[in-house]
Amino acid sequence: MNKIIIYDTTLRDGAQTEGVSFSVDDKLRIARRLDQLGVDYIEGGWPGANLKDIEFFERIKHIKLTHARLTAFGSTRHRAQTAKSDPNLQSLLLADVPVITLFGKSWDLHAEQVLGVTLPENLELIYDSLSYLVSKVDEVIYDAEHFFDGYKANPEYALQTLKTAESAGVKCLVLCDTNGGTLPDEVGHIINQVKAELSTPLGIHTHNDAGLAVASSLTAIKYGARHIHGTINGYGERCGNANLCVLIPNIKLKLRQDCISDEQLTQLTELSWFVSELANLRHQSHQPYVGESAFAHKGGVHVSAVQKVAHSYEHIRPELVGNKRKVLISDQSGQGAIVYKAREYGLDLTKNTPEVQQLLAEVKQRELDGFQFEGAEGSFELMVKKAKGLHKKLFELIGFRVIVERREHDREAWAEATIKIRTPQGVEQTAADGDGPVDALNCALRKALEKFYPAIKEVKLIDYKVRIINEHEGTGARTRVLLESGDEESSWNTVGVSANIIEASWQALVDSIEYKLLKEEMQQEPE
Amino acid sequence: MNKIIIYDTTLRDGAQTEGVSFSVDDKLRIARRLDQLGVDYIEGGWPGANLKDIEFFERIKHIKLTHARLTAFGSTRHRAQTAKSDPNLQSLLLADVPVITLFGKSWDLHAEQVLGVTLPENLELIYDSLSYLVSKVDEVIYDAEHFFDGYKANPEYALQTLKTAESAGVKCLVLCDTNGGTLPDEVGHIINQVKAELSTPLGIHTHNDAGLAVASSLTAIKYGARHIHGTINGYGERCGNANLCVLIPNIKLKLRQDCISDEQLTQLTELSWFVSELANLRHQSHQPYVGESAFAHKGGVHVSAVQKVAHSYEHIRPELVGNKRKVLISDQSGQGAIVYKAREYGLDLTKNTPEVQQLLAEVKQRELDGFQFEGAEGSFELMVKKAKGLHKKLFELIGFRVIVERREHDREAWAEATIKIRTPQGVEQTAADGDGPVDALNCALRKALEKFYPAIKEVKLIDYKVRIINEHEGTGARTRVLLESGDEESSWNTVGVSANIIEASWQALVDSIEYKLLKEEMQQEPE
Repeated sequence: MNKIIIYDTTLRDGAQTEGVSFSVDDKLRIARRLDQLGVDYIEGGWPGANLKDIEFFERIKHIKLTHARLTAFGSTRHRAQTAKSDPNLQSLLLADVPVITLFGKSWDLHAEQVLGVTLPENLELIYDSLSYLVSKVDEVIYDAEHFFDGYKANPEYALQTLKTAESAGVKCLVLCDTNGGTLPDEVGHIINQVKAELSTPLGIHTHNDAGLAVASSLTAIKYGARHIHGTINGYGERCGNANLCVLIPNIKLKLRQDCISDEQLTQLTELSWFVSELANLRHQSHQPYVGESAFAHKGGVHVSAVQKVAHSYEHIRPELVGNKRKVLISDQSGQGAIVYKAREYGLDLTKNTPEVQQLLAEVKQRELDGFQFEGAEGSFELMVKKAKGLHKKLFELIGFRVIVERREHDREAWAEATIKIRTPQGVEQTAADGDGPVDALNCALRKALEKFYPAIKEVKLIDYKVRIINEHEGTGARTRVLLESGDEESSWNTVGVSANIIEASWQALVDSIEYKLLKEEMQQEPE
Repeated sequence: MNKIIIYDTTLRDGAQTEGVSFSVDDKLRIARRLDQLGVDYIEGGWPGANLKDIEFFERIKHIKLTHARLTAFGSTRHRAQTAKSDPNLQSLLLADVPVITLFGKSWDLHAEQVLGVTLPENLELIYDSLSYLVSKVDEVIYDAEHFFDGYKANPEYALQTLKTAESAGVKCLVLCDTNGGTLPDEVGHIINQVKAELSTPLGIHTHNDAGLAVASSLTAIKYGARHIHGTINGYGERCGNANLCVLIPNIKLKLRQDCISDEQLTQLTELSWFVSELANLRHQSHQPYVGESAFAHKGGVHVSAVQKVAHSYEHIRPELVGNKRKVLISDQSGQGAIVYKAREYGLDLTKNTPEVQQLLAEVKQRELDGFQFEGAEGSFELMVKKAKGLHKKLFELIGFRVIVERREHDREAWAEATIKIRTPQGVEQTAADGDGPVDALNCALRKALEKFYPAIKEVKLIDYKVRIINEHEGTGARTRVLLESGDEESSWNTVGVSANIIEASWQALVDSIEYKLLKEEMQQEPE
C-alpha cells in the first residue's frame, strides 16, 4: 500500500554525465541488472533525440524483464505539429513500450522565452500530447520540468500545467527540480500546497546542484510523493541526479518504507560498481552506502571496538547493502586486523601464532619504510599468501635498464626499457618503448612474460598514483607508487616504495603480475 | 547578529580521508587560505595524537591570521589521570592556541562499552577536563560525539552530558552526528528538544554516511544551531564530513544568512582546487557549486538559452562562487583573471591588449594539455614575465639522458643522468647520480649551471608532487608534476606536464631555476 515506486533514469538522464557514453550493449546489460535489483520503472532513453536509443528499444524487446516496466522519454509536441503528426511523439510510439514519460514546461519563463509560445499555447501542447499518448499506451507519466522554479515564479500557472496533465489522464505527475537549486523545505512546502489540488499520484525528480537531491527526495516522500526518480551513482549532467544508491537504502533502512526487497538491497553495491565500470568512470570511494570507504575503519582500538559493538561506529550493517567493512591495514592495526583481513581472502590465520606475529612485524616494518597497504590490498594479500606458503616464484629479474633521453630539437623526451628475466621455462630478453620510463618498463615486462603466461594479456592497468612520502627532501624524497590493475572479473591494488620512482613502480608492477598469476592458479586448482 | 559561524576541520577531520596525508607545510598553506576565505575557526589538528600536529602548532605561531581563530582538538582526560596530569590535555595547552575543542562521549553505549567507564564517571571526565581548560584558555568548545545516536538511545543521559559541559563554562556545544546516519528531520526534532534546556550556543557537526550531511546542517541552522562544522570538499573518513564548499553557498545564497563576505565567496572554487591539489586527490568534477561540471552545458540550444536567460538553466550565477559556466571551448572572461593575477606579482597588464590576449590563449592551450596553474603560481608568474619581455634565456638544453638500471643482485635500481647545456658563457657537459631519475636529472642540471649562476646553490627543493591526470590510461597516462622550491627568502611552485614523468619533471625544474635566476636579476636591477 505504502510502497515507494523506484523510477530509474540512469539510461537517459544518467547518460548525460560529462564524459559518459553508453553503448547499446551497455544499456541492455544495465537494464537487465536494474530489473534484478527490483526497480519499478526503467527509463530506457529518448528515441526522438537519439538514434542509439531507437536501437535500444528495438533490441530490448528480446529481453524479458521480470518486474520493471520499460519507459520511453520525450517532449511535448512541437507547436507547429499536431500530436499525430509530431515526429517526436511518433518515435515514442515506435519504441513500442508500455509506458511513456513525457516532459512539458511548468515555468512561464521557459514557455515564453525558451519555447517561444504563449502560456495558453503551452497548456495546449501539454494537453494534446498527453491525451494522444494516453489513448495509445498503457500508462503515461508526466514530468513537470522546472516545476519548483516555475511554481516560485508563477504558482497559479505552474499548478495549471499540472491540472492540464491530470485532465489528460496521466498516471503520475512528476515534479522536477531540473536546475537542482531548490531547498528540501521549499520542496516540502510546495508539494504540500499543490497536492491538495490534485488527485493524481505525485512523483519527484531532483538534481544535485545544491548537494540536496537525496534530502529533497526524502522530504517529497514525507509530503506524499510516491514515484522517486534517480540514477545509479547519482549520474547525470552538471552535479548529477538524486543517487538511487543512497536513496534506496535511506528509504528502506531509515524511513522503513517498502520498495525493493531486502534480498535485492544486498545487490546494490555490486550494481553500483557494475554501472561505474560500464560508464568507464572511477567508482566513488566515499559514496554513501556503496563506496569502498563507506565502512572503512582505521586504527587498532577503533577496529576492536567495531568488532565488539558494530553499531558503535557504523550507522547500518554494511552487509545490508552488499558492502563490507573495510579494515585499513596500517601501522596502528594489530593482529586482529590481520586475521580479519586474511579471512576476507579465504585464508585462515590464528592470532598469536608465529605466522601472524611475523606478518604484523613485516607490515609494521614496511610501513616504516613508507609502504601503505590501505589502498594496496593486492600487495597485502600477496604477503599473506606468501606467509602461508601459497606463492611460487614464477619469474626472476636478471636485469632491466630504462633510458630517457632528450636532444636539443626534440619536442619531448623519449623512453625505452630493456629487460631480461628468467622463468622456469627459460630466459627471455626484450625491449620496448613507452610514453615514459614506467610505461616502457611495464610494456617490456609484459612483453617478456606474456609468452610464458598468456593470462597476463588480460591485465589492464587502470590507475597509477604517485605520492612523495617525505616531501621535504624534494626530488630525492621517497616515492610511493599505487597501481590499480584489473581483468574482466575484478581489480586489485599494489604498492611499491623507493627513493627511485622506477624502482617503486617496478615493485608495484611485479606484485600486480604475481597477484594475477596466483589468482589464475588458485582458480585452476579448486581447494 | 544572525551570523552563521563557520568552523573548518579540514586539517583535522578532513585529514582522516583515506589516502590523504598532509605535510606540515601543506597544512600551513591551507590554514592561510582558509583564513583568507573568512572562516571563523580553523581546527588545526590533534596534538595529543599526532607528532606532525605538534610541529604545525609550533610553526603556525609565525603566521599572522587576519580573522580566523585557531583551535586545537583533543579528547577528555583519561580516567586514570587528573585533568592536570593528563598528557593529552597538556599537549593541548602546549599547542598555545586561543581556542580548544574537546570531545566527550554522549552515548551511554560508548561510555560504558568503548571507554569502559560508568555513566557518572563519564560526566566527571567531561566536567573535569572542560573546567580545567576553561581556566586556561580563552575559549573552549565542546564536541558532543555521537550526540544524536546517544540521544536516541538515552535522551536523559545525552542531555545530561551537555548540561555538564555547559556548567563547566564552554562557549559552544557542538552536536555531532559522528556515524553520519541521522536523518535531517531527526536532527531538527532533537535540536528542538534539547535547545529549550540549554542556554549555550549550539553547533552542528555532521558526517555524510547517508548522503545528508549538508541537509542536516541546514536543518540544524533552521532550528537554531549557529556553529557549523565542515571540511573543504567534504573530506573526512568513510563518506566524509559536511562539505563547506556546498554549505557556505547554501547558507549565503539560499538561506540568505550572513557568514563569509560576498567577495570571499568568490574564492571558494579556487580554494576547493587548491586543497584537492595539496591532498593529492582528484578534484570532484560534479561537486555542487565548485566542480568543473557544476555549470557545464551541453548542446547548442541549451547553451544559447543559457546565454539568453542564464537562470533558465542555472540555479545561481557561477561567478558568485568563483566558478564559471563551462561551454565547449568557451572564451568568456579570463582576461580579467589574468590581469588580476598579474597585479599580485606587481606587474601591470591591461585588458584587450595583445599581450593579455596572447597570455590568455597560452593559458587555455596549456590547461587543455593538462597544466594547472592553481598551486603552481611560479610557472604562471614566469609566463607573465616572459610576456612582459622580462625574461632572458639564461641557458639552453643541448641534451640529457637518464639511465635507470637494476641487475640481478642489486637491492634497488640506481640512476644516473648526463646533461649538456649552452649558456652565454659557454657549453657545459656533466653527469650526476641520484636517488631516482628525477633526482639525478636535478643534480646534473644544477651541477652544470652552478658554475655560471652560483645563486642556484641557494635553491632547495621543498616538495615534489606527482599527479596522473587521465588515470584510466594506466602507466601511459599524462603526468603532472608540481615542484615547490625555496631559498632563504621565499618559496615558489612550478609545474610540468607530459606523458613522460621525466619530461614533466624537467619542465618544472627548468621553471624553478629560471624563476630563481629572474628573481635574482630583478633584485639586482631595481626598477
